[in-house]
Amino acid sequence: MKLWAKGYELDALIERYTVGEDYLLDKHLVHFDCIASFAHASMLHSIGIMTSTEKTQIQRGLNEIVSLHKNGEFSIESHHEDCHTAIENFLVNKLLVGKKIHTARSRNDQVLTALRLYQKVALLELMEASLSLAEEFIVLARRYQHVPIPGRTHMQLAMPSSIGLWAAAMAESLVDDVAILRSAFSLIDQCPLGSGASYGVGLAINRQMTSDLLGFGKVQNNVLYANNSRAKFEAHVMSALSQVMLSLSKVSADIMFFSLPEVGYFKVSDELCPGSSLMPQKKNPCALELVRAKTATLCSNLMQTMEIARPLPSGYHRDFQETKASLINSFLITQTSILVIKRHLSFSVNEERCLAAFTPQLFATDVALRHARNEVPFRDAYKKVASALEDLKGEDPRENIMSKRHLGATGNLSLSGIELNIASELRWISEQQEAWTKVEAWFYDLS
Amino acid sequence: MKLWAKGYELDALIERYTVGEDYLLDKHLVHFDCIASFAHASMLHSIGIMTSTEKTQIQRGLNEIVSLHKNGEFSIESHHEDCHTAIENFLVNKLLVGKKIHTARSRNDQVLTALRLYQKVALLELMEASLSLAEEFIVLARRYQHVPIPGRTHMQLAMPSSIGLWAAAMAESLVDDVAILRSAFSLIDQCPLGSGASYGVGLAINRQMTSDLLGFGKVQNNVLYANNSRAKFEAHVMSALSQVMLSLSKVSADIMFFSLPEVGYFKVSDELCPGSSLMPQKKNPCALELVRAKTATLCSNLMQTMEIARPLPSGYHRDFQETKASLINSFLITQTSILVIKRHLSFSVNEERCLAAFTPQLFATDVALRHARNEVPFRDAYKKVASALEDLKGEDPRENIMSKRHLGATGNLSLSGIELNIASELRWISEQQEAWTKVEAWFYDLS
Amino acid sequence: MKLWAKGYELDALIERYTVGEDYLLDKHLVHFDCIASFAHASMLHSIGIMTSTEKTQIQRGLNEIVSLHKNGEFSIESHHEDCHTAIENFLVNKLLVGKKIHTARSRNDQVLTALRLYQKVALLELMEASLSLAEEFIVLARRYQHVPIPGRTHMQLAMPSSIGLWAAAMAESLVDDVAILRSAFSLIDQCPLGSGASYGVGLAINRQMTSDLLGFGKVQNNVLYANNSRAKFEAHVMSALSQVMLSLSKVSADIMFFSLPEVGYFKVSDELCPGSSLMPQKKNPCALELVRAKTATLCSNLMQTMEIARPLPSGYHRDFQETKASLINSFLITQTSILVIKRHLSFSVNEERCLAAFTPQLFATDVALRHARNEVPFRDAYKKVASALEDLKGEDPRENIMSKRHLGATGNLSLSGIELNIASELRWISEQQEAWTKVEAWFYDLS
Amino acid sequence: MKLWAKGYELDALIERYTVGEDYLLDKHLVHFDCIASFAHASMLHSIGIMTSTEKTQIQRGLNEIVSLHKNGEFSIESHHEDCHTAIENFLVNKLLVGKKIHTARSRNDQVLTALRLYQKVALLELMEASLSLAEEFIVLARRYQHVPIPGRTHMQLAMPSSIGLWAAAMAESLVDDVAILRSAFSLIDQCPLGSGASYGVGLAINRQMTSDLLGFGKVQNNVLYANNSRAKFEAHVMSALSQVMLSLSKVSADIMFFSLPEVGYFKVSDELCPGSSLMPQKKNPCALELVRAKTATLCSNLMQTMEIARPLPSGYHRDFQETKASLINSFLITQTSILVIKRHLSFSVNEERCLAAFTPQLFATDVALRHARNEVPFRDAYKKVASALEDLKGEDPRENIMSKRHLGATGNLSLSGIELNIASELRWISEQQEAWTKVEAWFYDLS
Repeated sequence: MKLWAKGYELDALIERYTVGEDYLLDKHLVHFDCIASFAHASMLHSIGIMTSTEKTQIQRGLNEIVSLHKNGEFSIESHHEDCHTAIENFLVNKLLVGKKIHTARSRNDQVLTALRLYQKVALLELMEASLSLAEEFIVLARRYQHVPIPGRTHMQLAMPSSIGLWAAAMAESLVDDVAILRSAFSLIDQCPLGSGASYGVGLAINRQMTSDLLGFGKVQNNVLYANNSRAKFEAHVMSALSQVMLSLSKVSADIMFFSLPEVGYFKVSDELCPGSSLMPQKKNPCALELVRAKTATLCSNLMQTMEIARPLPSGYHRDFQETKASLINSFLITQTSILVIKRHLSFSVNEERCLAAFTPQLFATDVALRHARNEVPFRDAYKKVASALEDLKGEDPRENIMSKRHLGATGNLSLSGIELNIASELRWISEQQEAWTKVEAWFYDLS
Repeated sequence: MKLWAKGYELDALIERYTVGEDYLLDKHLVHFDCIASFAHASMLHSIGIMTSTEKTQIQRGLNEIVSLHKNGEFSIESHHEDCHTAIENFLVNKLLVGKKIHTARSRNDQVLTALRLYQKVALLELMEASLSLAEEFIVLARRYQHVPIPGRTHMQLAMPSSIGLWAAAMAESLVDDVAILRSAFSLIDQCPLGSGASYGVGLAINRQMTSDLLGFGKVQNNVLYANNSRAKFEAHVMSALSQVMLSLSKVSADIMFFSLPEVGYFKVSDELCPGSSLMPQKKNPCALELVRAKTATLCSNLMQTMEIARPLPSGYHRDFQETKASLINSFLITQTSILVIKRHLSFSVNEERCLAAFTPQLFATDVALRHARNEVPFRDAYKKVASALEDLKGEDPRENIMSKRHLGATGNLSLSGIELNIASELRWISEQQEAWTKVEAWFYDLS
Repeated sequence: MKLWAKGYELDALIERYTVGEDYLLDKHLVHFDCIASFAHASMLHSIGIMTSTEKTQIQRGLNEIVSLHKNGEFSIESHHEDCHTAIENFLVNKLLVGKKIHTARSRNDQVLTALRLYQKVALLELMEASLSLAEEFIVLARRYQHVPIPGRTHMQLAMPSSIGLWAAAMAESLVDDVAILRSAFSLIDQCPLGSGASYGVGLAINRQMTSDLLGFGKVQNNVLYANNSRAKFEAHVMSALSQVMLSLSKVSADIMFFSLPEVGYFKVSDELCPGSSLMPQKKNPCALELVRAKTATLCSNLMQTMEIARPLPSGYHRDFQETKASLINSFLITQTSILVIKRHLSFSVNEERCLAAFTPQLFATDVALRHARNEVPFRDAYKKVASALEDLKGEDPRENIMSKRHLGATGNLSLSGIELNIASELRWISEQQEAWTKVEAWFYDLS
Repeated sequence: MKLWAKGYELDALIERYTVGEDYLLDKHLVHFDCIASFAHASMLHSIGIMTSTEKTQIQRGLNEIVSLHKNGEFSIESHHEDCHTAIENFLVNKLLVGKKIHTARSRNDQVLTALRLYQKVALLELMEASLSLAEEFIVLARRYQHVPIPGRTHMQLAMPSSIGLWAAAMAESLVDDVAILRSAFSLIDQCPLGSGASYGVGLAINRQMTSDLLGFGKVQNNVLYANNSRAKFEAHVMSALSQVMLSLSKVSADIMFFSLPEVGYFKVSDELCPGSSLMPQKKNPCALELVRAKTATLCSNLMQTMEIARPLPSGYHRDFQETKASLINSFLITQTSILVIKRHLSFSVNEERCLAAFTPQLFATDVALRHARNEVPFRDAYKKVASALEDLKGEDPRENIMSKRHLGATGNLSLSGIELNIASELRWISEQQEAWTKVEAWFYDLS
């Protein structure tokens, strides 16, 4: 039965169209909606709407739902519209007090709250996974810091580089991404519960209490703003996820290039490469190609969500629902793509081919700068070298890369500095996760 | 078993990631892949690769797959990768000759061919549905051609308009959309089969024969171009679908505005309007809001597909797979959205409120043009009226709209002209559909 | 003076913001607006609003504007808002009859008409340029049809290909793009003049006459639809331009890859490659990189225009103005990018490196298919080859590519078929251009 | 003369295409590039590449450029390619030491550094402007906190709201946007100077010194990452700007709706509303429509920049240049749009129409919640009210809104809390601005 049932039947086509895949996506939200519902019930109890017994009945009911859900036995059907209805119906069917659970709240603030909790937990997981990937890159950077490869600009041979420099660059990129994810976490760490349909409610509810029970950093104050921030906050979160994907997409592009038959610095292991139905010899870097493609999917999810928000006046509009799939899929894609990239870091390195790739011209800039060290103005040195490129001689690439000792150069990757940043981020994440663990413990505590 | 199996196991994470939802999406393609496979088998027979008996065995096998599939009994599993593998495996398990079916083709050209057939059939359905919706608008335009409403620009009151003008505008928009869909149909009506992995095959295959058997307009000649056009063609088709959605989104925006409590020209019936979990009085135009939002989804699907294509060099890349979900979902969204809008055309019209909305200022331009008819230069007439707006008097809106008789104006909607266009498009569609019916009949014909 | 001046001054910030760059962009429209204005004046004369003398005065005034404009002496200032105001002001300042020119039209339909004419002419130019580029590719395909290069899928070595196949693929892609451009041309070849502010006018104007005078295929009938199609039509045109850019972007990616130091099939000439400020040896394919990047700009222009249209109800909204820069810049980008690619087709080919790139594995599929020709079921042949890849032997690549004779394969590029299509498109373009030349001649004819 | 000139002329078309509008956009960067160049020169002096006199000569030259530039007398021509070349050429032409300025740097890190400084300063301005706008909303919220308007969801009448709630919601949204902008500032507050072409340089440069001189928070360590972050960082900044625009777009949509003739809560003053060329009575909210449309432009700029970054391997590619216009235009749009919205806050409020808009049904939820307060389970109360909507009575809207006293509700807007946040953000901005003022003073200090 629909929550708003009042004497007419919704047209079947309209029901199918408006519900869409919500009832499937909501499996990601059941857990969070139950916890938020218990916080709401506790607050209703504190202001005298529920008795102590009723509150405990609600808690038991919600615990049961979570447990059924974990076993795949809590079904959300299309006619339910969403998990929120399925949960209220379950409680109502089981307990008289179920009919009280929706006092002073709206599905709007319920969805907002469940989505915020979902995003907070998912962001923490993503930060952890990103840092773990960054650590793998540090391991690579250490292992291969003396292995030279040609550095490129415009894909042309530029100056000596190293696998260490490359791997460390990826680690730094991911660490910055984690800072971006953390700032997205901070933005959404505001509790919208109690904002109702955007206009508050005519009861003396205690919003600070529910916010605290759920572990939010603060109450999202203005009740209209709470609802206006739907899609807007999601877009900010998805933009942060896109930043992670942009890092992964660059890793993919690099590994694919480095392992091209003509280049051959890396070799990706066979188990990661599907074959062809027609060509017996083929082993293709399909997963890396898909990381690149799925990054486009994420960017377009972001665009869709921003655009859905853009023209809408204040207040809730059903348009927002269309952003739910984009948000959840974006999290799933990013989470899995991190793992996929991690798996690919098992590539082997062909040092011979790396060294063989060095041509004398790769040292042209170094030669010019050596002149510049000896009082020749750089622009003159540049021209001198440019006009006699054929005179350039090969040098020892290993010596070259290790001799560059300024901050961040091939001979000075400052890996321990990155590791310090990683450790500090991990501490912060672990504090947040503990806080959430306590919220869950409170929910399950029937004593 | 994978088609390319050759002595190593694909990593489980990579398998899950690379297969994605393909095995689910492919339920839309089984039918088309079977028919295309039979055309391929017939051609292999014609060049001596298969015997006549073998060809018939293949046909029976493919017929069986289609029949199982219709009953939901043909399963495509994640480990199959896609429907193409499932189909070949089914044939191989059943018949020795199954092992011959993949002679001289690649999954690349198989996917291309099945997707083309899917799109052709889906485009025809979409054209039909769009025209049927256009016809409904013509009915509305006839019914309400004498009902005046204020015309707006910048949402401000502009000049007298009519519900007839509005409905007829929507009909014309849809008819133009159908022309756009038809041109997309023409573009993709090229048979890629036989292009193999992009480089043709070393057998004297007869590509004209398969193209004719499958009812294509022509062979897509260059084998590399056939594969390069993946994603590019899809983008063109999705752009055409976006045009339909843009028309529907405008209809949605208009109906929502016309039925706002403050405006009240239209009333959408209750069965189309879900309620609120909190507010007892609410009836919300949710489906119309979702048509608007899903149009954003379509635009972002288009963007994703174009962007996936953009940076890729020639030849197949796994990135293309990521466009399949966008394409198929775009068709499903557009098809359903047309039905949803059609359902909403049952709105009732409140003529009194339409008439009550007329203020004297709505006639300001007509007054200025009357001066212009009498030798006052228009720019002077404009200023005269602008400086004495308070002198404007109300006029009879019905008389006003019917008196405007130039082409396309409120008193001359030229509905029969639109109907002629609709009829002509319908004839073309029906010819195409008959051609496809013949292809299907040939596939099923075991005589 | 603003056309709508009526006793209050527009705030300076608002004026600057609302005018934006319109007064600059409109230099592309002056010519077309003058011609459309003369068609409008001729029609006003035919229905008795202007005398014959007045019509001729208007014609002389408009001719003078076009001539000043060509010499860079017709200035559109920010306070004019746009070229339409500048033109009307010029006429009014010069001639009393200038005040009549705006009778029975609105800036809305004026902008629509001028933009349509601009797009029609620009589309014809673009088709011509695309076909000319396709012809260059045919020349290349002929010259290099016997030069083998490895064909790739997933960028891995796949099967023997040829420069001829590659160049011919690009030609076919461009020819299909021209068909797409032509269908966009057909869509917009409808005259919106006379639709006024979306609601027609209260005068017995002759819309067929202006449409014919301006060389349009037909009148865009419904006056509301005429205005509703703003941004929608532009999006369709920009989608067609994106298709051209997608073809060019693929050419860019291929040339960049083929001329990588590690690959070396092609060498782009120095004059096309800027250098580096720091590295003396660098010559970079900057223009090709920018073709790829500008394709992203075009796609995002398209997205912006679709999104601006998406949520808007019927009627004109100022939002549409924001699509003008996107449209005009998209034309400029596409037009120049075609020339840039054409310039790059002067690359030289290093046949030795092409041949040296052939490994035995490139022939694996051909070997398997040879088994298949001899009664071994293909799937068994595939496995046999896959399990003994090291036994594969090199073959003569030239012989291989020329031996593949089926439709569209390396040995049968069907270039003359493509040339026939090009010739037929060129005829159509030339007819359209002649028709427009006649419209211009009529405008200039003061006899 | 080009910096990389070395014995061949760049093709004229390619020069035009590759330079594009860079030479125009770079007027925004001259100031920053000069300051960064002086920091670089100071560092070169510290490591013995320049004498003290040479350093001072460079400083005088750069001071002169900035001063000429302020007077519009420093010209960057198309043949210069960009401001960096124009500046080096100016120095070289004037001083022999000019030829030393490019020692140990690349245009790549120069562009990166100048863009970072530009963005840092522009972000601070934007934060200040956003907070100033938020303050205006607080003023409005105070003035109109007792003025009720109907609250809406799905644009339907929902529950009592107030102009105060609306204005305060906008203030909170802007304050959150400022936090987002601040986190973007933190990300980019890393100095890339010294990273060269992505591979560092063979001189013992002091990157910490230049970073400190320029007021950066830290050195961007890894030299490859410094260059890889181009476009990626810009996308993050543009995503933050989009968030501001999304807030402004919602304000626009609301003001436009509230001032519709049928709604009439607000009246925007005439000076902000351009008229129509045809319709004498029109006054249109054009600037608000353009804020909405320009938000779409910003979103598509973001998309373009993300997509340009997405497929690129490590290292510099010319594609990045195409993001410069998007970035700079996005800043200009956002900055001006804030001012435009601020100007519109001068609207007048029609309290009578606000009150007249209240229907009994707006109180339905309040009635149901009153039942819930008295022991009726909410779901039963809901149904009771839903089944007797016609029994609902009007209530006093003012009393209703002031009686809702929970956190963030109409009777408890917590404006002083928002003001505290604003004050704290302003302090942070002012500290940052002071730091930058010191950098500028150092640059100008010739003592």
